[in-house]
Amino acid sequence: MSDSLPLGACIGILGGGQLGRMLSVAASRLGLRCHIYDPAPNPPAGHVAERVTTAAWDDAEALRGFAASVDVITYEFENIPTATLDLLDSLRPVRPGRKALAVSQDRMTEKDFLSGLGLTTAPYRDVPDAAALRVGLDEIGTPAILKTRRLGYDGKGQARIMDPSQAEAAFAGMAGQEAILEGFVEFTHEISVIAARGVTGEVACYDPGENVHVEGILRTTTLPATLTPSQQMDAVLLAGRILNALEYVGVMGVELFVTAKGLVVNEIAPRVHNSGHWTQAGCAVDQFEQHIRAVAGWPLGNGARHVDVVMENLIGADMDRVPALARAADVQLHLYGKGEARPGRKMGHVNRIVRG
Amino acid sequence: MSDSLPLGACIGILGGGQLGRMLSVAASRLGLRCHIYDPAPNPPAGHVAERVTTAAWDDAEALRGFAASVDVITYEFENIPTATLDLLDSLRPVRPGRKALAVSQDRMTEKDFLSGLGLTTAPYRDVPDAAALRVGLDEIGTPAILKTRRLGYDGKGQARIMDPSQAEAAFAGMAGQEAILEGFVEFTHEISVIAARGVTGEVACYDPGENVHVEGILRTTTLPATLTPSQQMDAVLLAGRILNALEYVGVMGVELFVTAKGLVVNEIAPRVHNSGHWTQAGCAVDQFEQHIRAVAGWPLGNGARHVDVVMENLIGADMDRVPALARAADVQLHLYGKGEARPGRKMGHVNRIVRG
Repeated sequence: MSDSLPLGACIGILGGGQLGRMLSVAASRLGLRCHIYDPAPNPPAGHVAERVTTAAWDDAEALRGFAASVDVITYEFENIPTATLDLLDSLRPVRPGRKALAVSQDRMTEKDFLSGLGLTTAPYRDVPDAAALRVGLDEIGTPAILKTRRLGYDGKGQARIMDPSQAEAAFAGMAGQEAILEGFVEFTHEISVIAARGVTGEVACYDPGENVHVEGILRTTTLPATLTPSQQMDAVLLAGRILNALEYVGVMGVELFVTAKGLVVNEIAPRVHNSGHWTQAGCAVDQFEQHIRAVAGWPLGNGARHVDVVMENLIGADMDRVPALARAADVQLHLYGKGEARPGRKMGHVNRIVRG
Repeated sequence: MSDSLPLGACIGILGGGQLGRMLSVAASRLGLRCHIYDPAPNPPAGHVAERVTTAAWDDAEALRGFAASVDVITYEFENIPTATLDLLDSLRPVRPGRKALAVSQDRMTEKDFLSGLGLTTAPYRDVPDAAALRVGLDEIGTPAILKTRRLGYDGKGQARIMDPSQAEAAFAGMAGQEAILEGFVEFTHEISVIAARGVTGEVACYDPGENVHVEGILRTTTLPATLTPSQQMDAVLLAGRILNALEYVGVMGVELFVTAKGLVVNEIAPRVHNSGHWTQAGCAVDQFEQHIRAVAGWPLGNGARHVDVVMENLIGADMDRVPALARAADVQLHLYGKGEARPGRKMGHVNRIVRG
């Protein structure tokens, strides 16, 4: 642990939502402190962090002050403005590093990167213009989905194309942003691997979880996932390959489709991941602590699972169920301290321990 | 949950050591915020609390401001000055209430209370003067132990009396403080029950843990404890009797000796307890969250244990073992963020998950 942060060191976290909140709690278990940076006032992570800076992403003075107060910088979301990263990166180590962010901030770069590793993704085509979209649809067929290459802060630009006649409207909907066309994948179910890589290159993966999404939002993650032993091995090995190729430091979420022809990589997220929340109940070291260990240069924890778990997100009006969930046996509540339970807003989650 | 604190409410915690720190983290899981009050600057709990007040116990203005900012007040240690409690109690609910504090702040009152419930304690005698000590030693015999009735902030006044000739020196050591003489109990091992009672009177107990003390400091707690089913039942029932008699609200630690003649109550602590730290790894709802639930008027969580655990305290130089412990499988680290690892100082603990 010679290059590791000493006890009492401070970790800067960009973004103060629920992921930053649970990262800060995990850091406290290791005797480390956290400083949260978020443009929004009263971020959920601020309730459990030693310090909070409320300032814009382009406030150079605030960013400099933030960097000066911390020993290492990490983040809870991947769409941090490039200029913000440029400045912070020049002042303190940012983990995971720029390579991972460059890949995951652009769907096209991500797909090229994954294909380059020999991994299977959905068929995809770059769509710089309307002509490319028509060619792409000819090659990939329908149904397909047109997405902006980069995510904005205000939601995702996505359009389903069920028939080539919808191509023009879909392209117009991208509003001039660079886009990518993705083919549909026929899958039996979705899984994810929460994987971690430390500064020395060691890799540790949690057991894959089985995910159910409803309207694009994760509803449940179930452990163990329905997988053959060889599928489970494949999932863990390919996650490790991705982390090593990126010289990654931290926790990554790798979403996979299980198909008749094998595993297909859906997307990667260079941060702790909603589908890894079950580790809080299932493992001695959860994904949040694992991430803190990695970015702090500590040894990774052993991610072995000692119990079966079902994680369920509490979204919007699900908060009405909190009184009943608070009384349920073997249910671990995690509420995020957010004010208003708007539809679609992630307000908390529960980890239900399943006895054998 | 009609009388319970709403999400976003604030809990005031007197004392910002490791217990306050872990209480604050637990509160965050329920969407509640914490305000720590501690005379010492930079308390460990302040790293994970929304707000910290650093002020003396007799600073009435600071206490009033603290009370005004919170919805309910609890504490991490029982020796809060009476005048402080008088003031706070007039401004906000203090839980657990005065009855529990009055009993546990005075060893004589505590023993009388326990005996009055029909529970077995070590033989004891009030020692108002040297004559009473001589009579007490005649009746109880040696070895015995002379203790101050009340705990000071600066360590415990205790003197072992192996032979009546040591009585005079022991009495002089009390320096005029009220004292109690306790006989020795021959026990095979020590256990504790972490019990909780909610505002509606519901009681929930965790499985008893088996404790090993070295030089008066808890070293390990092992789950399950070595107990017959009827001993286990006795332990849980007597803990419930204590909580009900005190109309208690919160978590209490009840320390018991296991003897050939049954269970003997050693002492009670009206707060979360070191011997309950194992619940962080063994139960969906740990003792810290259970305490927050109780004082916030929430329903108690189910305390069922889903795995065997050995908790070990990290005391003073044990911190040198942290690098090795960080690499060990199935070990959950909990460091308290304290600066200096002085001999005898509790710096952290580990929960080791034991696979069947």
